[in-house]
Amino acid sequence: MIPRYARDEMVSIWEPANKFVIWRNIEVFACEAMAKEGIIPQSSADIIAQKAPQQFSPEDIVKIDKIEAVTKHDVIAFLTHLASFIGDDARFVHQGMTSSDVLDTCLSVQLTQAADLLLNDIDKLLETLKKRAFETKDMPCMGRSHGIHAEPVTMGLKFARFYAEFERNRQRLLAAREDIATCAISGAVGTFANTPPSVEEYVAQKLGLKPEPISTQVIPRDRHAQFFATLGIIASSIENIATEIRHLQRTEVLEAEEFFSKGQKGSSAMPHKRNPVLSENLTGLARIVRSAVTPALENVALWHERDISHSSVERMIAPDATITLDFALNRLIILVDKLVVYPENMIKNMNQLSGLVFSQRILLALTQEGISREDAYRLVQRNAMKVWEEGKDFLSELKQDADVTASISPDTLEKLFDIQYHTKHVDTIFKRVFTS
Amino acid sequence: MIPRYARDEMVSIWEPANKFVIWRNIEVFACEAMAKEGIIPQSSADIIAQKAPQQFSPEDIVKIDKIEAVTKHDVIAFLTHLASFIGDDARFVHQGMTSSDVLDTCLSVQLTQAADLLLNDIDKLLETLKKRAFETKDMPCMGRSHGIHAEPVTMGLKFARFYAEFERNRQRLLAAREDIATCAISGAVGTFANTPPSVEEYVAQKLGLKPEPISTQVIPRDRHAQFFATLGIIASSIENIATEIRHLQRTEVLEAEEFFSKGQKGSSAMPHKRNPVLSENLTGLARIVRSAVTPALENVALWHERDISHSSVERMIAPDATITLDFALNRLIILVDKLVVYPENMIKNMNQLSGLVFSQRILLALTQEGISREDAYRLVQRNAMKVWEEGKDFLSELKQDADVTASISPDTLEKLFDIQYHTKHVDTIFKRVFTS
Amino acid sequence: MIPRYARDEMVSIWEPANKFVIWRNIEVFACEAMAKEGIIPQSSADIIAQKAPQQFSPEDIVKIDKIEAVTKHDVIAFLTHLASFIGDDARFVHQGMTSSDVLDTCLSVQLTQAADLLLNDIDKLLETLKKRAFETKDMPCMGRSHGIHAEPVTMGLKFARFYAEFERNRQRLLAAREDIATCAISGAVGTFANTPPSVEEYVAQKLGLKPEPISTQVIPRDRHAQFFATLGIIASSIENIATEIRHLQRTEVLEAEEFFSKGQKGSSAMPHKRNPVLSENLTGLARIVRSAVTPALENVALWHERDISHSSVERMIAPDATITLDFALNRLIILVDKLVVYPENMIKNMNQLSGLVFSQRILLALTQEGISREDAYRLVQRNAMKVWEEGKDFLSELKQDADVTASISPDTLEKLFDIQYHTKHVDTIFKRVFTS
Amino acid sequence: MIPRYARDEMVSIWEPANKFVIWRNIEVFACEAMAKEGIIPQSSADIIAQKAPQQFSPEDIVKIDKIEAVTKHDVIAFLTHLASFIGDDARFVHQGMTSSDVLDTCLSVQLTQAADLLLNDIDKLLETLKKRAFETKDMPCMGRSHGIHAEPVTMGLKFARFYAEFERNRQRLLAAREDIATCAISGAVGTFANTPPSVEEYVAQKLGLKPEPISTQVIPRDRHAQFFATLGIIASSIENIATEIRHLQRTEVLEAEEFFSKGQKGSSAMPHKRNPVLSENLTGLARIVRSAVTPALENVALWHERDISHSSVERMIAPDATITLDFALNRLIILVDKLVVYPENMIKNMNQLSGLVFSQRILLALTQEGISREDAYRLVQRNAMKVWEEGKDFLSELKQDADVTASISPDTLEKLFDIQYHTKHVDTIFKRVFTS
Repeated sequence: MIPRYARDEMVSIWEPANKFVIWRNIEVFACEAMAKEGIIPQSSADIIAQKAPQQFSPEDIVKIDKIEAVTKHDVIAFLTHLASFIGDDARFVHQGMTSSDVLDTCLSVQLTQAADLLLNDIDKLLETLKKRAFETKDMPCMGRSHGIHAEPVTMGLKFARFYAEFERNRQRLLAAREDIATCAISGAVGTFANTPPSVEEYVAQKLGLKPEPISTQVIPRDRHAQFFATLGIIASSIENIATEIRHLQRTEVLEAEEFFSKGQKGSSAMPHKRNPVLSENLTGLARIVRSAVTPALENVALWHERDISHSSVERMIAPDATITLDFALNRLIILVDKLVVYPENMIKNMNQLSGLVFSQRILLALTQEGISREDAYRLVQRNAMKVWEEGKDFLSELKQDADVTASISPDTLEKLFDIQYHTKHVDTIFKRVFTS
Repeated sequence: MIPRYARDEMVSIWEPANKFVIWRNIEVFACEAMAKEGIIPQSSADIIAQKAPQQFSPEDIVKIDKIEAVTKHDVIAFLTHLASFIGDDARFVHQGMTSSDVLDTCLSVQLTQAADLLLNDIDKLLETLKKRAFETKDMPCMGRSHGIHAEPVTMGLKFARFYAEFERNRQRLLAAREDIATCAISGAVGTFANTPPSVEEYVAQKLGLKPEPISTQVIPRDRHAQFFATLGIIASSIENIATEIRHLQRTEVLEAEEFFSKGQKGSSAMPHKRNPVLSENLTGLARIVRSAVTPALENVALWHERDISHSSVERMIAPDATITLDFALNRLIILVDKLVVYPENMIKNMNQLSGLVFSQRILLALTQEGISREDAYRLVQRNAMKVWEEGKDFLSELKQDADVTASISPDTLEKLFDIQYHTKHVDTIFKRVFTS
Repeated sequence: MIPRYARDEMVSIWEPANKFVIWRNIEVFACEAMAKEGIIPQSSADIIAQKAPQQFSPEDIVKIDKIEAVTKHDVIAFLTHLASFIGDDARFVHQGMTSSDVLDTCLSVQLTQAADLLLNDIDKLLETLKKRAFETKDMPCMGRSHGIHAEPVTMGLKFARFYAEFERNRQRLLAAREDIATCAISGAVGTFANTPPSVEEYVAQKLGLKPEPISTQVIPRDRHAQFFATLGIIASSIENIATEIRHLQRTEVLEAEEFFSKGQKGSSAMPHKRNPVLSENLTGLARIVRSAVTPALENVALWHERDISHSSVERMIAPDATITLDFALNRLIILVDKLVVYPENMIKNMNQLSGLVFSQRILLALTQEGISREDAYRLVQRNAMKVWEEGKDFLSELKQDADVTASISPDTLEKLFDIQYHTKHVDTIFKRVFTS
Repeated sequence: MIPRYARDEMVSIWEPANKFVIWRNIEVFACEAMAKEGIIPQSSADIIAQKAPQQFSPEDIVKIDKIEAVTKHDVIAFLTHLASFIGDDARFVHQGMTSSDVLDTCLSVQLTQAADLLLNDIDKLLETLKKRAFETKDMPCMGRSHGIHAEPVTMGLKFARFYAEFERNRQRLLAAREDIATCAISGAVGTFANTPPSVEEYVAQKLGLKPEPISTQVIPRDRHAQFFATLGIIASSIENIATEIRHLQRTEVLEAEEFFSKGQKGSSAMPHKRNPVLSENLTGLARIVRSAVTPALENVALWHERDISHSSVERMIAPDATITLDFALNRLIILVDKLVVYPENMIKNMNQLSGLVFSQRILLALTQEGISREDAYRLVQRNAMKVWEEGKDFLSELKQDADVTASISPDTLEKLFDIQYHTKHVDTIFKRVFTS
């Protein structure tokens, strides 16, 4: 994580202040549950809940860090600090629990908080994509495969397919959030030796999590792998939109352009330049988010009831991947929202191939008239090649080709050169995408 | 894919014979739908359905390959071959469709076929894990964190957690299967210019797929990324089990061992050796399956309405990842099924630390007696260190420590050294895992 | 590996026939060395060398496979087969050696054979790039950053930088080849317990390898990681060239085009299309080669004196990555060699921005005339924006801007609009690149 | 990067203060060179060199950040700040240069600085490994393949092979450092349009870099890919050592142990525990460093003369990977230096298999006596299996096997059970490793 690519809201999830509040809640809820079970006195649980601070100031955090420097153990340092508020009854705090009960459940809470932010980002992105899709629903635009002109689409279809892709990503993230939202208070090796399952169930319910059906010392890491893999897929979808915009903004294409504010300098050397820097930046950020996937997969196979190799990985990728993705989504929302589109350039580009984009329609029409597919293909290609190689106009060439006009009259040929033919199902597609 | 790590059933999904049957079905169903829509004559659709071969022999495949060598286009080669059976009406086949309509929908069918096989594998694995879990439910065994003895668990708990992990993987694969099971017959750029959406809907329904709500020339690749990421997670879970077995089979641990058949030679040099070669092999195969994840993520961002860079990637990773994972799952099923367990070694290992594994229970008991957590920790640790460094017996040391016996009588101490204390919730955990 | 993306020469390196010849050589050379050391009789070594077959027919391979099916051990199967030719003296073959002595040294030989083929490929590619670079050395062409027109370059500079990049790749591959070219005949755990280091040294020398200074049961896997990482870098450079070509072939750019043979069909639906399918294919193949890097890195950390997890990985990635890269390099050579360039389109595109590409030169000229950088930037940008937004001509605008002409006369302005200004150091650059 | 896993020295390389000093030097050296070429007045170059600050205080950095917030361009912000010191002559600063000339050359300087630190780390690690290797050169220890006892080695051999591995890593890093140490002052598209190659050559020489033979707007990214791939290999080697230590510290093995300081608490719950947490942490950190490799490879293929997608990636992975690797190497140095070894446990473990580790030697001795390899194997295995399955003593069993004693007398058998046999070449190996 670097401040350049971070938003406060997501950053704060990963800050000590938030972490310690979650730790405190886990410990306090566990005490409440243990009091209910008669494991510790109710009065002690009450005192603990009362005296345990609800917030942790920068000074608190410094104090905890100092204790950790001695004990080399973060949870013990925290408990020692907590004890300074609670007094004697502090001996009941964390009783029978293991550090991972706190650490892993905390990570679940943080990841669900992060997921909620990301879901909110995606919702905003969906809204923006939908808005732009309907604005440009009928704006004709060249469809390209292999970077080569194919047949007309509309600009709205581009936004609509990104919408559909992010709607899927939303479902994936919801599933990943549910997968990660578990709580484990099951002790050193997951046997509930010192705290009964009911404690776990109580804490889980209070935190909005589900109890982990079976844990070891830790929550199983396939859940986290699923989470980070999902972020990697979302990042790739961001790259997908970014790549589209970068292409549309190319000098030779210029069908869309990132919004360029007045004071902005595109290049220290070339004052005329307006570069798609946001999209390029998103392309890079996608690589960063994706880079969390492999280490998360490597974290799954831990030794026996746990080894701690996953911990340093998660200390880095959990903030990095969520903060970077949150930043990227927000940058993308603005980018899409303000994207300038140039419908006249779209038309200009579409006309560049002198009608070749209608080649398939002619091919089909010839077939309909009883010409074999092979012959029709040859007829169309020989005229198409004249356009391609000699810059001729496709319609004129076809009209002059006796083999073509033997089957299709020049008048009919003209009617076949029609963009509406290609966009007639746009409304149906929009209905599919936006009514679900 | 190499034959060494491949099973016929999965391999055949990716063979030309299966691919061509799927292509044939797509084309025939599309003709049926087009006839219904009045786009092509019903009689032609009937002839096509009748004459298009239902199977493709090795000779057919050679013929198609030869045509492709000339046209450099696989679908055109196939259609040309098909036309040789159908005759004149062949001109209606593939009409208005684009190659990707066939290729991408076929890939969806193949991936769902592969998913079905893998789901079947997982079901068998779950069954086997469940069987072994109940067989060993109450078999005490050392629980280890960081590779160091922690507290007792049971062998059954190990199998049970792998069961739970694969139950989650099953859900993930079901979701990935659903995600990938879409059909696109939407033309060169996804606009249904030449074939109405109803054709897509008909073909989808016949193939057991859902229509892709919005496609370009291709089905969006975030779906495939999700699929391969899921395979990567499953592979990591396989590595997780394999790692456990490799550890348990270590010479110094030997709590479990891969089944070793009579004729087998462990080492060309050292005849005494019995190596956990299957588990080690699975560890390697997991790396292979995982290696498909990154290219699948890189495939998501295609240029405009498609570029074909994803194609070569999928031609390789789709068979490789599914065949390798299918092989690995089946190897794992046998491995788990036949795994030899050594309960007496488990007990022997557990006693190695002379009672240290009960340290936490003593710690808690001291706390319960009113000693502060800090003091209790110090008391326990000073006795534990004597066991660790001087090989003393933990219980004896505690009994001789006046500060300990001031709070807990020697008799009570003895009762605290009890494995049952650690395994009392095993039934509850099993209920959680196996009743859902 | 799939036949579609494979060349026979590289494939044959990985076929059993080649592998068994190498195994045979290792065993025979080891016997020679052991005879010299007096460990086995010289007469036996002579007989072994004479009777061990020099080639292995398909029938031999079937026989060896059958034995392996029983012994489940490939080297033992091979030795058993070898013994059937050698007779009694076969008992001296492989004496004191461990399977990995054969397997790992064989892999070194295969990887150096593969490296030699790849080096040969790179040499041909370099030659082709050099030829095209000199052919197009002075062909003016727009230079683009961010996909936006920047300043002129020449087409030759593009080829020249790819040349320089592959010259570096050549050095990297040479280094990786040297790194992997080691031989280990050091026994079960690398201690030379049964065969002295001199045997290893002899075999190494005969095979053109260096002795591994210290091995365990295996040659250390950091060497292989280095090898596959190098292939991954080369693949990324292939993608770099492919991406350039794909961009140049875009319909709107069309400054270069993959050679399109007469019979070829670009699209089953759109007969006019000429797609950069080779470059797109190379982009995908690069992803595949790169996907070998992570598993190769994961293979480095083996347990103790070896675990066999790396083996299945290498059985797949060693052929896959080398065969795919060899295929890709050869495809790239043809692609570059036959690439059609369109100099007139390059000029046409360059003129599209109506002179804006000279903006920096004007900026500098204004600075030279004593105007502050900030003011000069503002002057240039305000005229540039008129070109950008209103389609004006840059030179004309500048001539009409009194603040500009106050410093630079219209005549001088005209002279500053000069492509030669940008290409004057091309020869120097070529000298740097091609004289080293 | 997180402070927990960072050392100041490496962190400071990536801090703004260092970056701005490098930027300043590049600009000042470029002015010196341009003055020599007569492009700018010598007096201006002198003033620039004098007035440009040599250090940048936190206040300077805040000022630069504020300017960047407006211009959205970091180099322009820096130049504006610089101009405030230099005055009028500032208009000659950066003249004819492009931002990337500064940014990319600066990155080269930072990466070589980072490489130097890492090389220094590796030197210390090599020294430490060498020291431990010689200390434990003749300390017998079980060699294990597949986690199973194989034949004896010495502890010193383990350290020696790690030494050899890091000696190779040192060579790789030296090569990567040389690869990355280039300077580009070649303008907007690498044509030296406004600054002659001599300026680049001068700046390169002053900075200890080589001129980039051919650049575009940027230095080609295959160089950076090579750099990060090298870090990934080194990280994997760290994991290799860490994995060995984690295994040796397992409760059942306990042949080595991380140094455990007095105040340290192993577990909040289990006071007896001493966990190999440093090694486990290094295992995780290795995953993090490796995760930079794939994005660095994805950065190679930029669009045309550059796109900026690599930039955000490098802003994150360059500090992250170098800081984490530097931290990991330093942690490893201490870990290796202080590692506690338990030779008596090594002997105890070695005796666990009751002599089975000598099985191969017996096999060879039988072969030497004229018994066929197959028969010898069977003889050894049948006795080995009794040890394995019934806990018998291998030597006793062999002595009682008439088929064995027919060839080898009981006395000779006894002499074959000799650890020295396995360690006799240790000195030779050490000579190979440490004399090069």
